[in-house]
Amino acid sequence: MAGEPRTYSLQEIVERLGGELVGNPQTKVRRVAALDSATPDSITFLANERYASRLTGSRAGAVIVGEAMREATRLPRVVCSHPYAYFARVSVLFNPPADARPGRHPTAVVDPSAVIAPDAEIGPLVVAGRNVQIGRGSVIGAGCFLGDDTRVGDHARLFANVTVYHGCAIGDRVIVHAGAVIGADGFGIALENERWVKVPQIGGVVIGSDVEIGANTTIDRGAIDDTVIEEGVKLDNQIQIGHNVRIGAHTAIAACTGIAGSTKIGRHCRIGGASGIAGHIVITDNVEISAYTAVTKSIDRPGRYTAVYAFEPHAQWLRNAVQLRHLGELADRVRELEKKLANPKRSGS
Amino acid sequence: MAGEPRTYSLQEIVERLGGELVGNPQTKVRRVAALDSATPDSITFLANERYASRLTGSRAGAVIVGEAMREATRLPRVVCSHPYAYFARVSVLFNPPADARPGRHPTAVVDPSAVIAPDAEIGPLVVAGRNVQIGRGSVIGAGCFLGDDTRVGDHARLFANVTVYHGCAIGDRVIVHAGAVIGADGFGIALENERWVKVPQIGGVVIGSDVEIGANTTIDRGAIDDTVIEEGVKLDNQIQIGHNVRIGAHTAIAACTGIAGSTKIGRHCRIGGASGIAGHIVITDNVEISAYTAVTKSIDRPGRYTAVYAFEPHAQWLRNAVQLRHLGELADRVRELEKKLANPKRSGS
Amino acid sequence: MAGEPRTYSLQEIVERLGGELVGNPQTKVRRVAALDSATPDSITFLANERYASRLTGSRAGAVIVGEAMREATRLPRVVCSHPYAYFARVSVLFNPPADARPGRHPTAVVDPSAVIAPDAEIGPLVVAGRNVQIGRGSVIGAGCFLGDDTRVGDHARLFANVTVYHGCAIGDRVIVHAGAVIGADGFGIALENERWVKVPQIGGVVIGSDVEIGANTTIDRGAIDDTVIEEGVKLDNQIQIGHNVRIGAHTAIAACTGIAGSTKIGRHCRIGGASGIAGHIVITDNVEISAYTAVTKSIDRPGRYTAVYAFEPHAQWLRNAVQLRHLGELADRVRELEKKLANPKRSGS
Repeated sequence: MAGEPRTYSLQEIVERLGGELVGNPQTKVRRVAALDSATPDSITFLANERYASRLTGSRAGAVIVGEAMREATRLPRVVCSHPYAYFARVSVLFNPPADARPGRHPTAVVDPSAVIAPDAEIGPLVVAGRNVQIGRGSVIGAGCFLGDDTRVGDHARLFANVTVYHGCAIGDRVIVHAGAVIGADGFGIALENERWVKVPQIGGVVIGSDVEIGANTTIDRGAIDDTVIEEGVKLDNQIQIGHNVRIGAHTAIAACTGIAGSTKIGRHCRIGGASGIAGHIVITDNVEISAYTAVTKSIDRPGRYTAVYAFEPHAQWLRNAVQLRHLGELADRVRELEKKLANPKRSGS
Repeated sequence: MAGEPRTYSLQEIVERLGGELVGNPQTKVRRVAALDSATPDSITFLANERYASRLTGSRAGAVIVGEAMREATRLPRVVCSHPYAYFARVSVLFNPPADARPGRHPTAVVDPSAVIAPDAEIGPLVVAGRNVQIGRGSVIGAGCFLGDDTRVGDHARLFANVTVYHGCAIGDRVIVHAGAVIGADGFGIALENERWVKVPQIGGVVIGSDVEIGANTTIDRGAIDDTVIEEGVKLDNQIQIGHNVRIGAHTAIAACTGIAGSTKIGRHCRIGGASGIAGHIVITDNVEISAYTAVTKSIDRPGRYTAVYAFEPHAQWLRNAVQLRHLGELADRVRELEKKLANPKRSGS
Repeated sequence: MAGEPRTYSLQEIVERLGGELVGNPQTKVRRVAALDSATPDSITFLANERYASRLTGSRAGAVIVGEAMREATRLPRVVCSHPYAYFARVSVLFNPPADARPGRHPTAVVDPSAVIAPDAEIGPLVVAGRNVQIGRGSVIGAGCFLGDDTRVGDHARLFANVTVYHGCAIGDRVIVHAGAVIGADGFGIALENERWVKVPQIGGVVIGSDVEIGANTTIDRGAIDDTVIEEGVKLDNQIQIGHNVRIGAHTAIAACTGIAGSTKIGRHCRIGGASGIAGHIVITDNVEISAYTAVTKSIDRPGRYTAVYAFEPHAQWLRNAVQLRHLGELADRVRELEKKLANPKRSGS
């Protein structure tokens, strides 16, 4: 996707987005770039002071920096409090999201009872069931399936081949990436005489506004009540959300994480990739979970939690790992040694 | 999906489903509900005695309980041996699965050689290849792809956007959720002069009756012989089953689990979420694997097996985890101390 | 997929594929088979000397073996240096991939600006956007989506329901399995006043020649520059590749692995299933990562690396795992014991 040809001066940028301009306000840029690959017509950013030394060699035309880095460069610069977020906004100037192309593609299969805003875009080969509602300016990508009674808010964007089961609700400005499945049955099975009986999954999924859902992520419908993703939650790819989970507003979860059923996660949490959260637990607000960490019980205090087994060269791992199976015994032996030394008369007897 | 408007008396329920009725048999209910959110027109259940105290506050009209809880409430109740399974059956009364709507949607692309039962439902934009067979009362959801020579039994249901490669067989009453892929090539590659040569994957996938397959789960076709999922197996979302795996009847596997190629898993196993099973191993019947557990070798005894690294506040984890890399050495040092104390004359020399 | 009816003599096979023939050159075979299930009309292989004893009982008509196994059987045999790769090539003789059926299915939705080789096959219900290019002999399976400005090389094969976002490039002879998503937005979000701001993902994905991508695998587009998968890389199912990752040529990665953003992986690496690679690290060439291993920092030496917590019967695990949380303390106690024993006069005081 080539950047738009439009050029902006730094002056124009700070007029639109705020921040303090240091250096020539007429400096013109036409695209955003990474620090290392920037060219004189691009604007870059420095969000992490660790990388400050790279500023020296950068060929960028301008840079966005935080207060602390104000004097770290002679490049024309915008000084602001959140350089990375500022950079995101500048990037939107150069790379505006495509507008909806109003109308239904003739190959879309839309039930006559569906209510679709006139300026929404319904792509080729979309299937929309009975009583589907789609709001203003939303884009439903090619091949998406919207089951009966689903609702999509305003200015939402579903990329290609998304599946939304019946009766789910998607808020305003939600983005859903390809292959995501919203509202499949939760894993509700009951044992009876050594056979599994399926428990009907009759709840729905409610997704708040400004949520983003990654490619091939799955969010199960509730068993009885709804599964809920609150506003502003960001879900990366290949995440699995079990039935009746609730994820608090503005929580971000990295890829490949699984969250088992009925768990409640607080607001403003950050959950690392490939982590796993057990079912029926509660995690409070402002909790950070490290990548690869299994969370097996509730967390009631904010802070960072971790359980990662550090990797080693294989031969070293072999030598160490074998002891894991004797750790209880090793602790007993140390306790025994301590007793003997505390009572040395018995130790040599 | 709103519940059906039909109301049942407890009398009618036990006449259909068995169990013992305690309290007013004319008590009428019109939906199922969770213990906490039940209303007087709903029937709920208590499967776990840990939650018995919640019965007191419940506003439910009736409750399904096990023998041990018979006197734990004054609510009208059904006493039975498997309350959760009984609840599942009651829920089906109120929430019957939609019947197939017989016929092919005009946008479906069905090869003339396909043999489709007249009462099967072929949704919009389905693609069915040569010699596909679809049995009585089955529903093929919108956008599904059925490759050449696939067979689907009776009363099966494929939700939207399922992909079944050529030559796979799906049994009766199987449910497959959206985005699942059945029969993709297994990961068969052979090294030759530092290049990978693809090994043709010429087996198929055979899925027994009453299997359920979750959203975005993948089941690879066999390398030479078939991959086999036996009857009654329940697979949650985002599970990966490698080529030539066999999963024994009535085994249930939770989400995000991966099973590497050629592994045989027994009957009536329960495998927790996000676990990983190595290739070319054998797990016997009635094995339970805890969530997040890596199974690296065969298991020949029933029972529960676990390997979960318990999470901690990050600072504590740091202090403890660093020792994992010295565990072999720590064990050696303890052994040395034991020797010295057993032979104290040498210890101070 | 039944094997082709064509029969080959061993003579014909070695004429085409090389290797040394031992035994009757007129031995005829018509299919490939596994060692255990082979029949007299099939050719099998022995790649791992551990299984040599199974040769004795095999009913195969012929076998492919390495030099060391030349005399391990009396069966007619082909002796070669890479028996498994040789077997792969023999299997292709019996199971040739289906040729493209040139032309566009009438239900495909192809933008008039797309440039499609006349001998490419565009399946039913494919959607191809503006300026899409598809090379000679490529097959685009049913229901695939190719966004604007995507390019697919020659003799590539996308199975059903693959999604490729705009502006991505796929090389020659690439195979992509069903449900894979190439080019979805990377997980780029910037925090500002406790809200997440989306960072436009304006890079693409570049996939080299001879790459294979498994079912439901996701490869994110770059944030600014491209995500790159070099030639000959083999990716299994349900792998997640973050934005701006680069995977070196001929690296193979098993299923369910996640690779976080901006990480560079070398050439000829082998990465086990369900492993996780942190973001912003560099792994050198010829590294092997064991299955289930979390790689949290860069690796600059070839070799095998591991971090697997070995499973145990649950009760044993409980006893041992509790000590993990006291490991730092245990190490301190051992150090204290060592001090006391080194200085025994103080130990009993």
